[in-house]
Amino acid sequence: MLLKFTKMHGLGNDFVVVDAVSRKVYFNKAQIERLGDRNRGIGFDQLLVVEPPSNPDMDFRYRIYNCDGSEVEHCGNGARCFAKFVLDRELTHKRQINVETKRGQIQLNVLDNGQVEVDMGEPSFLPADLPFTADAMQDLYQIQANGETVELTPVSVGNPHAVIRVDALSDELVNRIGPVVEDHEAFPNNVNVGFMQVVSPTEVNLRVYERGVGETQACGTGACAAVVAGIKQGWLDKEVLVHLPGGDLRIAWQGPTSPIIMTGAAEKVFEGQIYL
Amino acid sequence: MLLKFTKMHGLGNDFVVVDAVSRKVYFNKAQIERLGDRNRGIGFDQLLVVEPPSNPDMDFRYRIYNCDGSEVEHCGNGARCFAKFVLDRELTHKRQINVETKRGQIQLNVLDNGQVEVDMGEPSFLPADLPFTADAMQDLYQIQANGETVELTPVSVGNPHAVIRVDALSDELVNRIGPVVEDHEAFPNNVNVGFMQVVSPTEVNLRVYERGVGETQACGTGACAAVVAGIKQGWLDKEVLVHLPGGDLRIAWQGPTSPIIMTGAAEKVFEGQIYL
Repeated sequence: MLLKFTKMHGLGNDFVVVDAVSRKVYFNKAQIERLGDRNRGIGFDQLLVVEPPSNPDMDFRYRIYNCDGSEVEHCGNGARCFAKFVLDRELTHKRQINVETKRGQIQLNVLDNGQVEVDMGEPSFLPADLPFTADAMQDLYQIQANGETVELTPVSVGNPHAVIRVDALSDELVNRIGPVVEDHEAFPNNVNVGFMQVVSPTEVNLRVYERGVGETQACGTGACAAVVAGIKQGWLDKEVLVHLPGGDLRIAWQGPTSPIIMTGAAEKVFEGQIYL
Repeated sequence: MLLKFTKMHGLGNDFVVVDAVSRKVYFNKAQIERLGDRNRGIGFDQLLVVEPPSNPDMDFRYRIYNCDGSEVEHCGNGARCFAKFVLDRELTHKRQINVETKRGQIQLNVLDNGQVEVDMGEPSFLPADLPFTADAMQDLYQIQANGETVELTPVSVGNPHAVIRVDALSDELVNRIGPVVEDHEAFPNNVNVGFMQVVSPTEVNLRVYERGVGETQACGTGACAAVVAGIKQGWLDKEVLVHLPGGDLRIAWQGPTSPIIMTGAAEKVFEGQIYL
């Protein structure tokens, strides 16, 4: 069959988005792997399939697949692309879109400027939720890495993050400290490592060394983790502009028991068709 | 403007191909860079633009651009994709296609099985043509690399190659010897390094460590260089099947003053449209 698709990206995190509402589409693992090949297929970080909801109160369901065919629970950059896609394709005219995901139900709000607000869930600072091995609860924890003492805030936003506040960002710093903290024995499942430079209470620069991947251009959960850690430590206000190498995200958090709200851009790159 | 394009590949070497015959299209450097971005654009190894010929005896002209906007002289994998494209799009019905390229005029023959024969020009074994620093002309040259003696055949097929015959291929071998030979002082402009395992007089396995790039999946000029070196040394017949990591090429050479003829597949991946 001839498959129509749209290539999109959110801060350089790229997606092939498929409308499986207007016409049913199923993908097997081999097809996803082939489509994901950047030389012999289309190429993407994730494949995003938009489906009808199973619950009539919801507007859509979507599924997100990695290039290896495995299904992902949630992806902030993907959620923004999804919302732009269903509006551009006129699959809905709502600007508050209720969606079923593998993580559960979420609401997406499309703003007048085209940016999309995504509910990223509540953070947890409990060490056991990362997991992080600690003798007692503290605000800032210290670990030894390569003979250096590193101060960090452990936070889970669905996946585990260690947020390190730094005076200045550099390749040297990210590459020296990132890998050592990532698989430090205090993090039995390893950890994503964020390096945050606080510019003002409402603005930070951030670089993230992702678990199993290395530094990435735009880690959405890393931006959430960094801002809630900074709010908890008293360094940041409740709404913060985060400059990542791939672009900007706005993160808002009202405090404990509130969800993190992430706002950012989504871009359509091109439309295409390929024989499955 | 809305640009229509076709994504193609030859042995994994991938191209965005644009019809500038039916409608004039010009690209500036910034546009090529944007289109070449694999996350925020389409992504390609090279952009291939099909134009009308300036000489009425020719069928087409084509230009090949790297992602940085620089123009390439000739590319065997690209020439095969070009020929498949102009036939599929019915821009011609000829199966012998005469083309102007930056390197000069070439003829492409489309075979009944859809594979395309490309004239890759005449090779040169003159050391000065690579350049390669040698005291005297020899059949096999020896250089010292990392305390090892490496025997090689230097050959130019438009770009410089050092062909090394080996008993067995391995990652360890390619990564240990490739970089050292690539920038050995005997090659003042550096060199592409081919590792050839002779299976029979008509079949070889080949891995190529490309100058400035590292190992690639399917170096067309590397396949040409390896086969003509093997023919010159008496190891191979005049027509040889070359197994590269990315797929197979057939290389034929009748001897000095004859051009090398390369035959291989070209695949259409998908069609798309993007705003320039």
